[in-house]
Amino acid sequence: MTPASSSALDELVAALPEGAVLLDPDVTAGYRQDWAADPTAGRPAAVVRATCTEDIQTVMRWATAHRVPVVPRGAGSGLSGGSSAVDGCIVVSTERMRQITIDPVARVAVTQPGLMNAEVKKAAAEHGLWYPPDPSSFEICSIGGNAATNAGGLCCVKYGVTTDYVLGLRVVLADGTAVSLGGPLLKDVAGLSLTKLFVGSEGTLGIITEITLRLIPAQPPASTVVASFDSVQEAADAVLAITSNMRPAMLEFMDHASINAVEDSVRMGLNRKAHALLLAQSDAPGAAGVLEIETIVQACENNGATEVFATDDQAEGDAFAAARRAVFPAVLAMGSLLLEDVGVPMRALPQLVTGVEAIADDLDVLICTVAHAGDGNTHPLIVFDPADPDMYERAQIAFGRVMDLAIALGGTITGEHGVGRLKRDWLPSQLGEDVMALNRKVKDALDPLGILNPGAVIAVKEGSLD
Amino acid sequence: MTPASSSALDELVAALPEGAVLLDPDVTAGYRQDWAADPTAGRPAAVVRATCTEDIQTVMRWATAHRVPVVPRGAGSGLSGGSSAVDGCIVVSTERMRQITIDPVARVAVTQPGLMNAEVKKAAAEHGLWYPPDPSSFEICSIGGNAATNAGGLCCVKYGVTTDYVLGLRVVLADGTAVSLGGPLLKDVAGLSLTKLFVGSEGTLGIITEITLRLIPAQPPASTVVASFDSVQEAADAVLAITSNMRPAMLEFMDHASINAVEDSVRMGLNRKAHALLLAQSDAPGAAGVLEIETIVQACENNGATEVFATDDQAEGDAFAAARRAVFPAVLAMGSLLLEDVGVPMRALPQLVTGVEAIADDLDVLICTVAHAGDGNTHPLIVFDPADPDMYERAQIAFGRVMDLAIALGGTITGEHGVGRLKRDWLPSQLGEDVMALNRKVKDALDPLGILNPGAVIAVKEGSLD
Repeated sequence: MTPASSSALDELVAALPEGAVLLDPDVTAGYRQDWAADPTAGRPAAVVRATCTEDIQTVMRWATAHRVPVVPRGAGSGLSGGSSAVDGCIVVSTERMRQITIDPVARVAVTQPGLMNAEVKKAAAEHGLWYPPDPSSFEICSIGGNAATNAGGLCCVKYGVTTDYVLGLRVVLADGTAVSLGGPLLKDVAGLSLTKLFVGSEGTLGIITEITLRLIPAQPPASTVVASFDSVQEAADAVLAITSNMRPAMLEFMDHASINAVEDSVRMGLNRKAHALLLAQSDAPGAAGVLEIETIVQACENNGATEVFATDDQAEGDAFAAARRAVFPAVLAMGSLLLEDVGVPMRALPQLVTGVEAIADDLDVLICTVAHAGDGNTHPLIVFDPADPDMYERAQIAFGRVMDLAIALGGTITGEHGVGRLKRDWLPSQLGEDVMALNRKVKDALDPLGILNPGAVIAVKEGSLD
Repeated sequence: MTPASSSALDELVAALPEGAVLLDPDVTAGYRQDWAADPTAGRPAAVVRATCTEDIQTVMRWATAHRVPVVPRGAGSGLSGGSSAVDGCIVVSTERMRQITIDPVARVAVTQPGLMNAEVKKAAAEHGLWYPPDPSSFEICSIGGNAATNAGGLCCVKYGVTTDYVLGLRVVLADGTAVSLGGPLLKDVAGLSLTKLFVGSEGTLGIITEITLRLIPAQPPASTVVASFDSVQEAADAVLAITSNMRPAMLEFMDHASINAVEDSVRMGLNRKAHALLLAQSDAPGAAGVLEIETIVQACENNGATEVFATDDQAEGDAFAAARRAVFPAVLAMGSLLLEDVGVPMRALPQLVTGVEAIADDLDVLICTVAHAGDGNTHPLIVFDPADPDMYERAQIAFGRVMDLAIALGGTITGEHGVGRLKRDWLPSQLGEDVMALNRKVKDALDPLGILNPGAVIAVKEGSLD
């Protein structure tokens, strides 16, 4: 790979519609990083704001001819540096690709990648349908980015993750070929499962330009339980008691620091003294829902909850869910963040949560932990002052140790954010040599020049740019 | 690839546990074909009945060294010839790999591939849990085969297909390397989505030796509606009216010939004069379920149903579902079968069903059609007398024309059975050149010698055995 030359860039500008290519370094600088604020992100030679599949084909044909790296970018809300630019690359932004159609008979949405997750949900809701996956960032993350990272969210404990809803994709490959994979059919086993291979590939195999999503009937009204605990261990035990008896529609965890960060910023009336808080929902209709709420309440009470509050008021439940979603911005207000996304098998959840506390103590760093507890996916948020180099170093060590702990517990370094750039160096330790080799074989088969999102997920081959 | 030589076979026998290798041609002949009864199936040099991952690693290391083709085989219930042997190959049977463990806290099953689907369901049920995918053949098809074909079934319209439940796999690759992909976590996005790539790969990329399955809470009791129609078109219209308003737990279609075949064999009291029958279930609890059943009944009545019967009696509902499942054996009793598995987008369902009737008329062959109507997946069963060469030829033509019709309607040649050997020649026509090339790239990257299930799905390269 080589950075784009000036004459090559002229060629690209000429091949694309007017205004599609941004070259001003002050403007392109805004496309260097995503929310991970990766300090190692490079400087793009240009940003292409594509409007259609053909634009992206043009970019990839050109990039293949000139061996220039290409970094795909959705809304830039990624938390692992999956959209970190590399020096001299072309950033392909899908922000202008915003068409969507809903077919209520087939119960599918066909959407371009640039819509926000919330906009997809809204379009579906207009037909009484629902697109479940709900990253906390659903209002500011794009559906293309969701597909590229196989994003999760709060309701996934019951409703599954992004890949469970992706029936078809249109993808531009490294050489500029556009392929349509899958389609509106729930059942289609003709050929290899390539649709699912591209979901979660973080732009390393191709660029997604259209997504066919399965929709389901609108979610029934949910009832909500909020429970406070004096210890993280008790809350974690309550989680296991709940999940071994039922499948909640949401089961979230917040630790002491997270509770107080939220109260400082949005004032929900959460119990500031609690060491842990669980937020659970049931959306089972009628008597089944009442039974589920009883099961949750009892599991909390049996495991030492100091306070348990249940409500079937929608607005109240939504407000608690919003409070949970407010943790990330609230903690961000306290300093810079290294954002973890580790997951473990359910039984190991107590060990993970208490282990993270021990790491924080040991390294004297603040770690606020929130978790999609019902599926074992946790977000320890490591807070540091960027002006304090020693604290930054300790935060970096904590970031690695949390991943090491998750791996040791049989878990994953990333449940829903992606490997991106920030977690790339830990991937071999989780997957092992043979699975890494298999990842590379697929990557090399589909992107032999290594021009697609080099630097993310899988380290690029020797002699290349990054 | 070369057929296994006698000295090479001695080496294989010596490397495996006593009794693992079957060499007697009378015995190995029983492993030549699956239920598709592919007349082009070859004769295996040997059958290996593996008991563990290591046995299969031994076979694949040996096969790579000697360039001998290997055909993986589950229960042999495949309907597309995905387990058709090739001459001189080793058939690897997983029938002896029958261990399973259930973790009710993580709500997962970890199973070897040799258990029947029904056995997995039973093991889950012992913990109050449910493994939803339910091919009609669930009592005689293996879970390994289900994963290898991404099998579907009746409840998939609401609960999704096999891949939606596969969280992790252990797979032996072409060179004998064993890899563990994914695991018990609902959320795990570390590296490419290789787990999902192997699901539905029909033994062409590796041999699945262990499967981690997501389980969900036991299905609530279902209510059932049976409706008779004077025309296929009216029934198809009723299906669209149902699916655009709700998501049934089952929505099956039987045509006139299928109804009568079942009545001839099991006597369910179905209306023999009906031209079409719909069988629908709702498992929504309480009032929600009552509403769903009302919606179904009304959709049938509004679209000309001559008779509508609703029941919340479980045994009665199960009996109707069993009647639907009895279609395949009942029609098989009438002659030999070419079994179709075409699917179309929901809106095109009426055109597909009536188009199949036209093909039957035109070619003067009997085609009984049953369908998982709620997800657009249909099984036209083409009946022929094997002793009548002219009829066999017409049946073959019909088999192709039905697939051509599905492709023309934007559908698939296979919704849930797999491409196998029988549908391989139609795959390029559905996928197109570019997607075929992408399939080949992945196949070649993972199986460079082309020894894994050659002949199935993707035609093997020039100069090889088949």
